[in-house]
Amino acid sequence: MADIQAIAKQFTDFYYTTFDTNRPGLQSLYREHSMLTWEGQPFLGAPNISEKISSLPFEKVQHKVTTLDAQPSSPTVSSMIVSVTGLLLVDDSENALQFSQIFQLIPDGGSYYVYNDIFRLNYG
Amino acid sequence: MADIQAIAKQFTDFYYTTFDTNRPGLQSLYREHSMLTWEGQPFLGAPNISEKISSLPFEKVQHKVTTLDAQPSSPTVSSMIVSVTGLLLVDDSENALQFSQIFQLIPDGGSYYVYNDIFRLNYG
Repeated sequence: MADIQAIAKQFTDFYYTTFDTNRPGLQSLYREHSMLTWEGQPFLGAPNISEKISSLPFEKVQHKVTTLDAQPSSPTVSSMIVSVTGLLLVDDSENALQFSQIFQLIPDGGSYYVYNDIFRLNYG
Repeated sequence: MADIQAIAKQFTDFYYTTFDTNRPGLQSLYREHSMLTWEGQPFLGAPNISEKISSLPFEKVQHKVTTLDAQPSSPTVSSMIVSVTGLLLVDDSENALQFSQIFQLIPDGGSYYVYNDIFRLNYG
């Protein structure tokens, strides 16, 4: 599963760098039927997902990935599930928040889009 | 997505009750091509997965689910991704460990089996 791990790493590097520097840039990763569940709230489709992410009420944000796991999600298509745990630094808070995030990536013309996205903060 | 949430709840109730009381009983939830990534270590197929889970070095274990999210994982099949965060109480330790676990459930003759399973402890 070496390739899958490398693709997952490449995807999450791109995703979190874009999230931390240019949130509207994430919209192109989603499609019409993509789903986001953000802290239990469901959003359907790239425009709604992008609007939610872009409107999150913080100015500065930094993700630090702690663990990254990936598995093929289908026996027939090269889709994959990517599971991330990490720390979120928001604005000038000194307390990092733990988060878990899951993606299902679907191949599409040499690249991948996000079909599933589930985000949760982990409170201690 | 009401049905999916109910199925996810039913599945995780069964999964964690079985994990906490009769770990070998989990083997029937996996199939030949099922995958488990446990703290970064990959296992393939029901026998290997069951052996790993059954051999985890604790006597008593209790899972407490904190958050549970589910999404359909395919536009054509009623498969789903289930994402859990929660607390793990092991043996007589008073410190609960935070964990994240993800499943992809695939429908199979009126029931579901686990195709993907990714488990991580979240250290603070």
